[in-house]
Amino acid sequence: MLAPLTPVAVLGASGYTGGELVRLLLGHPSAELVYLGANESAGKTLGEVHPYLAGATGLTLESLDPAAAAGRAEVAFCSLPHGASAVLAPALLDAGVRVVDLAGDFRLPADAYPPWYGFDHPASAWLEKAVYGLPELFAAQIAAADLVANPGCYPTVAALGLAPLVGVELIGPGSILVDGKTGLSGAGKSPTDATIYAATEESVRPYRFPKHQHTPEIERALELATGVLARVSFVPHLVPAVRGVLITSYAPLSDGATTESLTACLAAAYAEKPFVRVQPPGGMVDTKRTRGSNLIELQAVADLRTGTAIVAGALDNLVKGAAGQAIQNFNLMTGVDETAGLPTTAVYP
Amino acid sequence: MLAPLTPVAVLGASGYTGGELVRLLLGHPSAELVYLGANESAGKTLGEVHPYLAGATGLTLESLDPAAAAGRAEVAFCSLPHGASAVLAPALLDAGVRVVDLAGDFRLPADAYPPWYGFDHPASAWLEKAVYGLPELFAAQIAAADLVANPGCYPTVAALGLAPLVGVELIGPGSILVDGKTGLSGAGKSPTDATIYAATEESVRPYRFPKHQHTPEIERALELATGVLARVSFVPHLVPAVRGVLITSYAPLSDGATTESLTACLAAAYAEKPFVRVQPPGGMVDTKRTRGSNLIELQAVADLRTGTAIVAGALDNLVKGAAGQAIQNFNLMTGVDETAGLPTTAVYP
Amino acid sequence: MLAPLTPVAVLGASGYTGGELVRLLLGHPSAELVYLGANESAGKTLGEVHPYLAGATGLTLESLDPAAAAGRAEVAFCSLPHGASAVLAPALLDAGVRVVDLAGDFRLPADAYPPWYGFDHPASAWLEKAVYGLPELFAAQIAAADLVANPGCYPTVAALGLAPLVGVELIGPGSILVDGKTGLSGAGKSPTDATIYAATEESVRPYRFPKHQHTPEIERALELATGVLARVSFVPHLVPAVRGVLITSYAPLSDGATTESLTACLAAAYAEKPFVRVQPPGGMVDTKRTRGSNLIELQAVADLRTGTAIVAGALDNLVKGAAGQAIQNFNLMTGVDETAGLPTTAVYP
Amino acid sequence: MLAPLTPVAVLGASGYTGGELVRLLLGHPSAELVYLGANESAGKTLGEVHPYLAGATGLTLESLDPAAAAGRAEVAFCSLPHGASAVLAPALLDAGVRVVDLAGDFRLPADAYPPWYGFDHPASAWLEKAVYGLPELFAAQIAAADLVANPGCYPTVAALGLAPLVGVELIGPGSILVDGKTGLSGAGKSPTDATIYAATEESVRPYRFPKHQHTPEIERALELATGVLARVSFVPHLVPAVRGVLITSYAPLSDGATTESLTACLAAAYAEKPFVRVQPPGGMVDTKRTRGSNLIELQAVADLRTGTAIVAGALDNLVKGAAGQAIQNFNLMTGVDETAGLPTTAVYP
Repeated sequence: MLAPLTPVAVLGASGYTGGELVRLLLGHPSAELVYLGANESAGKTLGEVHPYLAGATGLTLESLDPAAAAGRAEVAFCSLPHGASAVLAPALLDAGVRVVDLAGDFRLPADAYPPWYGFDHPASAWLEKAVYGLPELFAAQIAAADLVANPGCYPTVAALGLAPLVGVELIGPGSILVDGKTGLSGAGKSPTDATIYAATEESVRPYRFPKHQHTPEIERALELATGVLARVSFVPHLVPAVRGVLITSYAPLSDGATTESLTACLAAAYAEKPFVRVQPPGGMVDTKRTRGSNLIELQAVADLRTGTAIVAGALDNLVKGAAGQAIQNFNLMTGVDETAGLPTTAVYP
Repeated sequence: MLAPLTPVAVLGASGYTGGELVRLLLGHPSAELVYLGANESAGKTLGEVHPYLAGATGLTLESLDPAAAAGRAEVAFCSLPHGASAVLAPALLDAGVRVVDLAGDFRLPADAYPPWYGFDHPASAWLEKAVYGLPELFAAQIAAADLVANPGCYPTVAALGLAPLVGVELIGPGSILVDGKTGLSGAGKSPTDATIYAATEESVRPYRFPKHQHTPEIERALELATGVLARVSFVPHLVPAVRGVLITSYAPLSDGATTESLTACLAAAYAEKPFVRVQPPGGMVDTKRTRGSNLIELQAVADLRTGTAIVAGALDNLVKGAAGQAIQNFNLMTGVDETAGLPTTAVYP
Repeated sequence: MLAPLTPVAVLGASGYTGGELVRLLLGHPSAELVYLGANESAGKTLGEVHPYLAGATGLTLESLDPAAAAGRAEVAFCSLPHGASAVLAPALLDAGVRVVDLAGDFRLPADAYPPWYGFDHPASAWLEKAVYGLPELFAAQIAAADLVANPGCYPTVAALGLAPLVGVELIGPGSILVDGKTGLSGAGKSPTDATIYAATEESVRPYRFPKHQHTPEIERALELATGVLARVSFVPHLVPAVRGVLITSYAPLSDGATTESLTACLAAAYAEKPFVRVQPPGGMVDTKRTRGSNLIELQAVADLRTGTAIVAGALDNLVKGAAGQAIQNFNLMTGVDETAGLPTTAVYP
Repeated sequence: MLAPLTPVAVLGASGYTGGELVRLLLGHPSAELVYLGANESAGKTLGEVHPYLAGATGLTLESLDPAAAAGRAEVAFCSLPHGASAVLAPALLDAGVRVVDLAGDFRLPADAYPPWYGFDHPASAWLEKAVYGLPELFAAQIAAADLVANPGCYPTVAALGLAPLVGVELIGPGSILVDGKTGLSGAGKSPTDATIYAATEESVRPYRFPKHQHTPEIERALELATGVLARVSFVPHLVPAVRGVLITSYAPLSDGATTESLTACLAAAYAEKPFVRVQPPGGMVDTKRTRGSNLIELQAVADLRTGTAIVAGALDNLVKGAAGQAIQNFNLMTGVDETAGLPTTAVYP
């Protein structure tokens, strides 16, 4: 028997993540797309905003209107700029719509917003009810949630790689260093001097450190998962690619830990998780093997000479790092198979 | 008055580094290329091996013969696979030819070769006389040396960024984590499954860690420059680019150190160095701005929240990371201007 | 009601096209993969040959054995090097297995093989029965065929763009010039000097003209579709991309033809075809909008000043240009929906 | 004896071509850069506009002022948007400054400007005196000229490849089809939806045909060189690269012409030309082998089966296709060696 269709809305459909949400939802077996909202692109057809989606649906983009969305949808995906969801999502929630928010607006404690995002949070009551939507770690809470804060791309990789090891103390207390590399789709669709092809090809660049807003989110995700408050220093880098995030984390290695014990810990933690591929010792993660899929690859190595645990992870930032993970959360929230509508194989090469 | 021409030989002219050496030496005002040696490519013209150099010189590649090279050249550049220079360079040196070796064969103490390179060093007497050829740190020794071990690309960036800070204890003792990103020219000219375009575009991958042979070299360079023995954990990554190495190093920040004091220390250390560009606070390094030049860009940031010094550096691995630096060493050895024959401006974009 | 599952074999599963066939067939609603054959990779698991497909199926690659394949499968996809299918496919056919051949072995008349492929065709009886598998033009014959010659990537684009216009004489008689651009996946998985990243990035190169074997295939496809024997001069180029073929064809424009009439002709020809997107006047085709999908984009322009019809087309060479089109043929042959198992939306960006 | 320094101005120094002009002029042995003019960037240092040129000169960008430039310079390079030079250059010329204009403003007859550039030419008297600056074809006129119209990147390749063959009738009369491929630096430095990395990688796209303004310029260049008025249909394409233009031209092959005779004709025409590399039969041109240099590679093939001459050519659009060629013209105008200040070897890989 087929699952009944759940009517869903996408608020913020004009960016790369919005487009990926629409693409995946159009192929989802138990979701029916009933509302597409946008700001500047309101009134345009989907094909005008995303030419590669021309003809995929008859919907046109409407202006952002929570009431209109709430009148049609049971679940809403908010893929809006940081700060906009915090204003808009409460209206959806108050109208009884369950929300998966893809911005950073419901991921941190209220007091973290001024220093890291530059605004005072306008909806702290809802913020307290939000569930951090990392499905491999918090499935039960997500299933019951009205408001899911879909994680950032970097925190998804860092937390899934580190949390099981921190949890069993294979990684000792102390500071964790997180080095991130991302393709350009993470920088969004608006053209800038920094994102044009001529300035990007053959360019490897760190950016916005040590102030990147994913820094406290990595700390928060680890604390939520393990109760341990680690201090994270995070440096993201732009590399010449479109999709793909690779994280290399460095942490103090506990006595007696080995590459084998680190690997076994990760393998056990994710044995039943359909999207996590833990590499065996000697196997190296590769963003390209995840592209277009909801997969994440993880690898852990003990550098015994220096007492360092090195944990690397790779995913497609628009799928497992954004739209795909949001749909994975939707699947948990609506009780359908966790993999429904989500590719488990990369488009390769 | 023009400097007299020094006759020079290149042993190992068929790889990417060999080609870059030839290209730069052909335009060098005080070097005259008199011998090109190769192994499998012996007998071919330069244009057959490097089509982009067709017509640039009448020399053809000869089989590798130290005696022949020594009969014509005063200085030899050895750009051979690891292990080959250690066998071949002594014959050149014994014949009175000064050598700049671009392999790893003379960079480490003898006891480091079995674990990191997999061979027993066959010429330990010469190894002890070798000078580590990082011109910004060891100019005087290089000028007087008969045998210069030209540094690896990663250690060049890591050591130039870290040494001044370690030297004045802005970075405290303890472990240093070095995260490297490189383009594909560093992987050489021989085609492999890992280096074809279809497997490389959109691929970000760590490789060969924690066993990469540049790990002990970074430690050695820091010790030579500062007397401090640091423990380095090093993870290199391949990113979709041809030229360019970016290193992000993480080290314990000493009390009171700030982004400004770190930056000032680097700026003072390299104030007179023509190829080093220290970025001001807020400036971010970029491999693309060094491409085709002998420049290195450096940047230091104090992450006060976590007590971490973050030092980033970028260069063109084939120029400042290999052939250009070798010529910079040649310039010091022969007493000509340090910048002779070396581009100080990138080819951009 | 679900369609019954058709057991299928893939002979030649280790290349890029073979991997794409496996990926798409694993998600196909009415195909069941029962045999994977390979030459050098026999005995390996799918994940060893295609790491991105690790875990996707329990099948391992077997040595190429038509009898084994015929014992299990009703339809076989042959994705073998040119010349190998001509030897191997007859054994499958004689055993009652229907074959979709992705090599060039059954696309041309027998007398074209010595000059263009360098071999005498060993199975001319089957060659005469083969149907040229361009679904948009020859659906009825394909549905009834035992042996379908799946077209080459370049001929698919050129023929679909030109055939309707030649057929109604909007393009006059005379020579047609076809300029092709392809990404590197078309050059296969084996590493060569010409396909490594360092030699490919920033490189635009023509290759193998005027002797490329797709030249007579384009002529043949046009003749089969229209009865007109055109003379085609074809120059393919390698550009720095992985997937994607773009063809720009130039032909004499008939009197009175306009951009509008050319466009209307194409639009009418493909009005009912689910994978063809004809761009309106002013719209430009783009390979990126087809990536990962079975789509083809077409565009026609009348250059009235010079009397030239310009027809451009774009597709993903591994999908609509190879594996996807083969499955489209399979769908026609087995009477299921033409789009079954085939993506109609690109993975973008 | 060194040549005396000629004081030069660059008007329009903020774009990619302007930056390349500055980079090359700073290393030119007989040019002294005395004025940098810009529009929006006036008042900024060179390093603020082109960070890779930081520190290369003490000059800052001034507002565009022909009088100021004329007060200091003997030769001016105008690297301004189309339409701006036609207004500004006359003031320089009237003040006795010789001008090399890199825009399209002095390349065509006056009546071609309204249909192809969309403006009426404001300085037709100077337009008539302008010399088309293709040094390999018009060296004598260039040497004597006050105003040189530096050719476009596409016309440079097309005309150098075709003119010798048209001139001796190896290519018969009739239409010529020109298919161009360019990297993104040709699209300029201003970010647009079409030039961001995420939209460009894996994208091959035709653009602006059949109305591209280089179409009449190719016809004009051929007519100037040969007296033959050919009709050219031209389709340019964007490919994922930064530098590099490749042109593939198709023309009717005259009776008796062969690959050998076409090649011999080109080789003879350019035997004494330092920047032209004619490939032998079987050799294929490659943009990458010209990158960063003023070289152009040419190749001609007779497709006897269809009676088509195919002429391919490759260059670096910012050097031989723009700034380098402008300096080559400057060298001819000032009587110094044609290669002064111009790289004859590519930066490869």
